[in-house]
Amino acid sequence: MIKKLKHLLIGTPLADSELGNEKFNIFWGIPVFASDAISSVSYAGEEILLVLIPVLGMLSYQFFLPIVAAIIGLLVILIFCYRQTIAAYPQGGGAYIVAHENLGQTPGLVAGGALIIGYVLTVAVSACAGAAAITSAFPQLLKYKALLAFAIISLLTWGNLRGLRESSVMFGVPTYIFILTMITLIVTGLIKYALGLYTPEQQVVAVQQAEDTLMFVMLRAFASGCTALTGVEAVSNGVPNFKEPTVKNAKTVLYAMAGFVALVFFGVSALINLYQIQPNSEATAVSQLAGAVFGRGSAMFFVVQIMTVIILALAANTAYAGMPLLTALMAKDGFLPRRLVTRGARLNFSNGILFLFASSSILVFAFNGDQHLLLPLYASGVFISFLLNQYGMVVHWIREKGNGWKIKAIINGFGTVVTGITLVVIVIVKFLSGAWVTLICIIALVYMMRKIRKHYVTVAEDLRIESTQKAKEVIRNVASGKVILPIQSLNRSFLKTLNCALGCGFTEVEIYHISDNKERAEALKASIGELGLNAVFHYDITPYRNMNEVLLKHVEEEADKLGPNRSLVIMMGMLVVTKQLEKPLHNQTTQRLMKELETYQNVSVFTVPYLI
Amino acid sequence: MIKKLKHLLIGTPLADSELGNEKFNIFWGIPVFASDAISSVSYAGEEILLVLIPVLGMLSYQFFLPIVAAIIGLLVILIFCYRQTIAAYPQGGGAYIVAHENLGQTPGLVAGGALIIGYVLTVAVSACAGAAAITSAFPQLLKYKALLAFAIISLLTWGNLRGLRESSVMFGVPTYIFILTMITLIVTGLIKYALGLYTPEQQVVAVQQAEDTLMFVMLRAFASGCTALTGVEAVSNGVPNFKEPTVKNAKTVLYAMAGFVALVFFGVSALINLYQIQPNSEATAVSQLAGAVFGRGSAMFFVVQIMTVIILALAANTAYAGMPLLTALMAKDGFLPRRLVTRGARLNFSNGILFLFASSSILVFAFNGDQHLLLPLYASGVFISFLLNQYGMVVHWIREKGNGWKIKAIINGFGTVVTGITLVVIVIVKFLSGAWVTLICIIALVYMMRKIRKHYVTVAEDLRIESTQKAKEVIRNVASGKVILPIQSLNRSFLKTLNCALGCGFTEVEIYHISDNKERAEALKASIGELGLNAVFHYDITPYRNMNEVLLKHVEEEADKLGPNRSLVIMMGMLVVTKQLEKPLHNQTTQRLMKELETYQNVSVFTVPYLI
Repeated sequence: MIKKLKHLLIGTPLADSELGNEKFNIFWGIPVFASDAISSVSYAGEEILLVLIPVLGMLSYQFFLPIVAAIIGLLVILIFCYRQTIAAYPQGGGAYIVAHENLGQTPGLVAGGALIIGYVLTVAVSACAGAAAITSAFPQLLKYKALLAFAIISLLTWGNLRGLRESSVMFGVPTYIFILTMITLIVTGLIKYALGLYTPEQQVVAVQQAEDTLMFVMLRAFASGCTALTGVEAVSNGVPNFKEPTVKNAKTVLYAMAGFVALVFFGVSALINLYQIQPNSEATAVSQLAGAVFGRGSAMFFVVQIMTVIILALAANTAYAGMPLLTALMAKDGFLPRRLVTRGARLNFSNGILFLFASSSILVFAFNGDQHLLLPLYASGVFISFLLNQYGMVVHWIREKGNGWKIKAIINGFGTVVTGITLVVIVIVKFLSGAWVTLICIIALVYMMRKIRKHYVTVAEDLRIESTQKAKEVIRNVASGKVILPIQSLNRSFLKTLNCALGCGFTEVEIYHISDNKERAEALKASIGELGLNAVFHYDITPYRNMNEVLLKHVEEEADKLGPNRSLVIMMGMLVVTKQLEKPLHNQTTQRLMKELETYQNVSVFTVPYLI
Repeated sequence: MIKKLKHLLIGTPLADSELGNEKFNIFWGIPVFASDAISSVSYAGEEILLVLIPVLGMLSYQFFLPIVAAIIGLLVILIFCYRQTIAAYPQGGGAYIVAHENLGQTPGLVAGGALIIGYVLTVAVSACAGAAAITSAFPQLLKYKALLAFAIISLLTWGNLRGLRESSVMFGVPTYIFILTMITLIVTGLIKYALGLYTPEQQVVAVQQAEDTLMFVMLRAFASGCTALTGVEAVSNGVPNFKEPTVKNAKTVLYAMAGFVALVFFGVSALINLYQIQPNSEATAVSQLAGAVFGRGSAMFFVVQIMTVIILALAANTAYAGMPLLTALMAKDGFLPRRLVTRGARLNFSNGILFLFASSSILVFAFNGDQHLLLPLYASGVFISFLLNQYGMVVHWIREKGNGWKIKAIINGFGTVVTGITLVVIVIVKFLSGAWVTLICIIALVYMMRKIRKHYVTVAEDLRIESTQKAKEVIRNVASGKVILPIQSLNRSFLKTLNCALGCGFTEVEIYHISDNKERAEALKASIGELGLNAVFHYDITPYRNMNEVLLKHVEEEADKLGPNRSLVIMMGMLVVTKQLEKPLHNQTTQRLMKELETYQNVSVFTVPYLI
């Protein structure tokens, strides 16, 4: 029944050969790779104002656009840098690969850890920002914001467990509609403003006593706005998914994405400036802007909100597609559990999907659905991977040389310096508000991944056999083993186990019984005797209900008697029920014994299934 | 490491013989068995007023005390009835036993189901009421009420997993202090009132348009107040735990308990009446009373609140002690999974404890920590078990006859009628506000328990062997089996498995390999050949990563070839790591295969542990 339910929810299993890859052209490639980056427009500007306004009040708007311009400048630099990563790594150049290949294991793991944390935060932040877009339209839902974010995550998880394909249409249509909606918003807003149809109300803003210098406030605002750049690296990871000529197409998509991000981010920010929008905890800046331009409650207002939710959901979905590929790559290298390499029944990486679901849900509830609290964690992780990617590329050019490598190294070097400075700024100004969490998590992940790798190496070392000669020696020690068959009562399951033991050809068979009643034990002995087997019957009496303890002691003694060269087998019947719901009703004892005995040398527990 | 952590949290395992039972005398028996009943004083009066006040306003106080008196009258009847259960069932006469023995299986299961639900609700309601006592003292914690209730449940769960003994001191001291505190409250309150030191403020109460008749409102108030009687049956369950003369001592404790409940319940209610306390969602009636009598914020005010929290925690703890004993009893009868019969590492019933923890926590969060919403579910379950116990006793006397059985039957018959009427009242007036949930849960539980019993009976039937002769026939079919050893590479784990297979004495051994690379498979074949074994080497090539599918298909074919009389064994090495944290890194494939193969007839999977 549970299996049926699972199939209903998740879909029936797919065969391995059903795995296919869609290749993207430029037009459809843009939305697939740009949704993450473009979606950050919905919160980045607001984050800047949230830093400025409490300190500078209405003066904030003088500094707002310059900061936006600086971030767009940073975007342009990043685009030129990633253009080179695309050319150099047409097989896909994520930060993990580039750092691992060029800088070594530890930088690779740091990049990998930063990327994993980035994926989790992409989901959490996008879900919270999506929930904020909903609550901005329906303020009565405000107290359920964390639940709304959780609902978005749950839906995405469900879709991905079913094996949601990242189809070009699914991404393309909403992303283009979102871009069109935003352009409509910007153009309408500008016209309305130019015609004098809107004048911002003279609002009085309470300004706190500033404890920081103006410079520090600007840096904090800049660091907050850098969240607009998250997702920029997506194209460089996915080069092999483009149609031929892949590198050229990927580069074109990269430019187009940057163009859209810059256009929408600057346009929306300029409007926010003109309309002097003040973000608050109840309504996002974009929703207030849409309200001011189209009128709160108008159809276009709701279109803006709905499209914002959808583009944020698509952004979160990129993590569901991206992280499992990364963890499979890292698991193949031995840094994560090997089971992450294989795909699940629906040919997706269900473990990775469930990990994303659990960790992002915890974040959403821990931070009560507030994206403002999550964003400081986000930016620091993303910029660590930017920095390692750029620095790795510099080393790549110096090693590989090739055509015009000096120019290329200088460009990536410039990228390294710029992302490095930005990272330092982010970590310093955001350290207490969350960057420390990210750093600790990355350190913990790197430590764990090294441990895992070390473990796999030890195991491989332990299992290795030097030569066939050595193997022959090991086999030469073969001696006949002994089997113990624990018995509770003479029933069909026991007889099947007995048959199996006799069929195996064991030369020494012991039937072993534990009871709290001597008479019953003797009766069982007599019944077994009647069977006329070539087997010893032995029983122990215990007044307590510690059957397992007594059995374990007996096994230990027998194993000692046999010595290290002969193996002892405990063979037990195991009732098998086919209905999932009936499983908890059986075999607790068998399983507990197996677990307790698996660390004994030369002792194996064999279970013979008996189908009810 | 996880094991260490577990030991640190839960304590080291205890030997079976460390189980002991404390026997109670009268003085210490009272608190152990009365804490549950007495604790309900802290919410029962309030529940009555919460029904009356919205309809009758200040007129409520005219009806309040008569309703309290009626409930105390019901208490007296119940005491006389349970006195007889104690005499008739000195081995402990819970509703499950009495109903099962006298009324048959289904009534027994209904009583058992009602008791299980009652235990879960005891925990949930007591935790919420305890949280309400805390938030009444500290209103700033009001929005964390559900979390506070969850914290109380978590603490109790932790204590019980560690094997918290229900020691007489643990219960005795706080219960007597609580009773003393309440008497102090009542006496001080009465004196203060008599001296005219307190006059209730003239409060205006908004009265709703009453849609119900006065009679119906009274019945609803009565039904709500009946929660004061929960816990009354405790003594009759625990008769064997009293010192000799057990029955006499148990009866004395029963009277004393009733006396305390009546005294405290009536005293507190009378004071609430005099002081015209109006319960609200922020402060409990008892806390307002304590505030009015001792002054809010005074030391005695906090003593009342703290003692209320403690007595409610003790009440919840009775469920932790009682439910596992009940489920063990029912599991022995085959109505619940057999694993509930055995105790865990600390000699407690950890499954039952975790079940109580999970289900009561879900209730607490689902009802947002509001005991007012939970109480309608509670009373109906409790009165079902009262009714079945009383009716079972009537049948018991009629069957057994004995000294003065007619009088006894009449007394229990009167109890049956009274509890029956009360139950009908509760179900009718509380149906929509929660009683339906309880009824559905009981029906579901009874259905499930019958299914479980049926399953165990089928299994026993299936396993049974009519005679030794029949057993001999089964064994006569023994034929030598075949073993297949899947191999990935020639390593130490494989060699150990091979040794074990050879030691078993299998006459037919096949080594089987699956690869996506023919050259590597041939190389492995050559290595195996060099070993000079009496075994067949066979390999399959598959271009996909569907190794498991191919293996399963091969096993199926081989099993078909062997026919139904010869058993096929798949023997695989299993890497065993001793550190709990390393376990997820291994053996996913082995375990999945075992699960998939366990339903094949005549196929067994044997795993040979290889210790790293």
